[in-house]
Amino acid sequence: MRDCHREISGWLKASGADVTVDAAGNLRALYAGEHRSAPSLLIGSHLDTVPNAGAFDGVLGVLVGIALLEALDGRHLPFGIEIVGFSEEEGVRFGVPFIGSRALVGRLDDDLLNQKDARGISLRAAIKQFGLDPAELKRAKLDESTLAYLEFHIEQGPVLESLNRPLGVVEAIVGQTRMEFTFLGRSNHAGTTPMQLRRDALAGAAEWVVAVERVAQTTPGLIATVGRFEGKPGVTNVIAGEAKVTLDLRHKSDEIRAHAKEEIVKLANEIATRRALMLRNDTHLDQHAVFMDPFLLAQVDLAVQAAGCEPYRMVSGAGHDTMILAEKVPAAMIFLRSPGGISHDPAESVEAADVAKALECGLFLLDQLTHSAEFQKRVCRA
Amino acid sequence: MRDCHREISGWLKASGADVTVDAAGNLRALYAGEHRSAPSLLIGSHLDTVPNAGAFDGVLGVLVGIALLEALDGRHLPFGIEIVGFSEEEGVRFGVPFIGSRALVGRLDDDLLNQKDARGISLRAAIKQFGLDPAELKRAKLDESTLAYLEFHIEQGPVLESLNRPLGVVEAIVGQTRMEFTFLGRSNHAGTTPMQLRRDALAGAAEWVVAVERVAQTTPGLIATVGRFEGKPGVTNVIAGEAKVTLDLRHKSDEIRAHAKEEIVKLANEIATRRALMLRNDTHLDQHAVFMDPFLLAQVDLAVQAAGCEPYRMVSGAGHDTMILAEKVPAAMIFLRSPGGISHDPAESVEAADVAKALECGLFLLDQLTHSAEFQKRVCRA
Repeated sequence: MRDCHREISGWLKASGADVTVDAAGNLRALYAGEHRSAPSLLIGSHLDTVPNAGAFDGVLGVLVGIALLEALDGRHLPFGIEIVGFSEEEGVRFGVPFIGSRALVGRLDDDLLNQKDARGISLRAAIKQFGLDPAELKRAKLDESTLAYLEFHIEQGPVLESLNRPLGVVEAIVGQTRMEFTFLGRSNHAGTTPMQLRRDALAGAAEWVVAVERVAQTTPGLIATVGRFEGKPGVTNVIAGEAKVTLDLRHKSDEIRAHAKEEIVKLANEIATRRALMLRNDTHLDQHAVFMDPFLLAQVDLAVQAAGCEPYRMVSGAGHDTMILAEKVPAAMIFLRSPGGISHDPAESVEAADVAKALECGLFLLDQLTHSAEFQKRVCRA
Repeated sequence: MRDCHREISGWLKASGADVTVDAAGNLRALYAGEHRSAPSLLIGSHLDTVPNAGAFDGVLGVLVGIALLEALDGRHLPFGIEIVGFSEEEGVRFGVPFIGSRALVGRLDDDLLNQKDARGISLRAAIKQFGLDPAELKRAKLDESTLAYLEFHIEQGPVLESLNRPLGVVEAIVGQTRMEFTFLGRSNHAGTTPMQLRRDALAGAAEWVVAVERVAQTTPGLIATVGRFEGKPGVTNVIAGEAKVTLDLRHKSDEIRAHAKEEIVKLANEIATRRALMLRNDTHLDQHAVFMDPFLLAQVDLAVQAAGCEPYRMVSGAGHDTMILAEKVPAAMIFLRSPGGISHDPAESVEAADVAKALECGLFLLDQLTHSAEFQKRVCRA
């Protein structure tokens, strides 16, 4: 990460930005406005990624920001531009995502600082080891005058490619529910137990998986995934007495998601009752959906259009730093097509032509915001 | 096993039987007929069991045999009775079941003798370590004159209990197919991949599990079990790109089993095709059903009836030494009710009253055979 900061800082400084690293390890580079006191538009994404990852998830959004500064070629706008390269978005080391961006909204609290990695090193200690001072975290917080946050990111999914579109305008980041269901039956000899005398937990869980899929297929926009399925004892000639299955449920409408969750729990109970199984279910996560700022969204639509693309509104099925920033400032997000929908894999890629479109769109957006009366008002209010 | 042999040998000798241990470690005790050269009826079961087992699986059948000798109280019949306590029926140590009974039908060959246990000790070496001589194995073979084989065994299933019957007359031991199916799709992000763009191997496998169950429920006498289900990578928020599932299929009719196998493979292919998944399937076992001897069966029916029970014909869903012996001699098997259907567990049990019924039935059977013209002919032919 130090090497990464050094490399990127060089490019940022060359574009005329002042570069610092905040106490959460975020790289922050201010390219001042026409007046040094002018409030800023944030453009950024994260610099960390997952093990065995590709080269674009996160960092591409920071590089697009730098390229936009370069394209300004020393020209200053009525507002400043702060490029942010967030730390620890993926949550690989401490099991908690969005650590960097949480610091900007004041949510990097003691609980999180005490969180430990696999080797027992706390986040607080890791920050110190990196040469930063956790006591300075409050200085990492967003300035009250911050105008907005804009993030470019690869889609990490197949939708834009399937529609043959280079860019997508994210209008919401889905809400998410994560659950675990345990069906409990009776383990028995596969040869000596007739079908009608079984309490087969694995068969019950399988029936539920099919039902979950049906709920998702008949609820527009709902995505439901059973990613883990464990039958116990897991032996060819033994009826499974226990089956654990997980549920990952996402929708941009919290109401629809809550309703689907209820329906899926009801189906699990019905299946369990009919099969004389016991059922346990635990909710591990219930996170609400986040909507993008309507004014910024409209501006992004226009900029995308100006870059020659039809503004295609879509939903992000994955969480992003934008979700965190949106708690405090108007936020918007632009997706770039992911070839093959592949991400978190060395084969992750992006088309150069799509990046060019993103840059074009970014420049149009900066120009629009410069001339927008509404944005001007925000600048002045700040 | 040496302690077990010592204890049981004592009882056998007290009943007037000559006890030896053959080269496969089977305890064999001959209670001679009226003429010392008279051929024998074998009564037996196995002396080994599984780790953490109960007290009845196998050994009960040997003890019933001993109790029958005791009940004869020195009286000799026109035929001899050989009580056999088989070694290594479960296959725990060498991964191969029925080692003891294979020796009696001449199927304990070099391949099997070279089979090694977890510590690398071959069956041949284990036989020597026990103080026996593998070169003597041919002497363990059944005498050509052997009349029949009779095995008492706990049911190890819930059928007799559910029907409120103490005894069951096994008319066949099911044939068995064991397979492994692998559904291959594409692993993907659970949040960014819409339902219609998924190739979810886990969902496909779950649909197949439900279909397998339906085939079994609509085919009388068929039992089908999916005991193992593994999705990969097995993570809550990742669509599984691979799912491995096993199939255990049993029926007393080899034709019905073969047809069901075909149907289940067809269903797997249909599901895979519809979902754009690849499918692999491997057959690990295809073992034909074994039928009990009709004459002996009819005699057992009568004996069960004489003991005051309705003769209930049933199928054994598990393999037993009887299956091996039936290759060479007329064989029959009587099940005793298993409380709770529990076996291979310390809670395994049997009702004392049911054992009394089994003994009564055994004595009636010996009496019937003594007076049966058909059996008399067999004795004379031998």
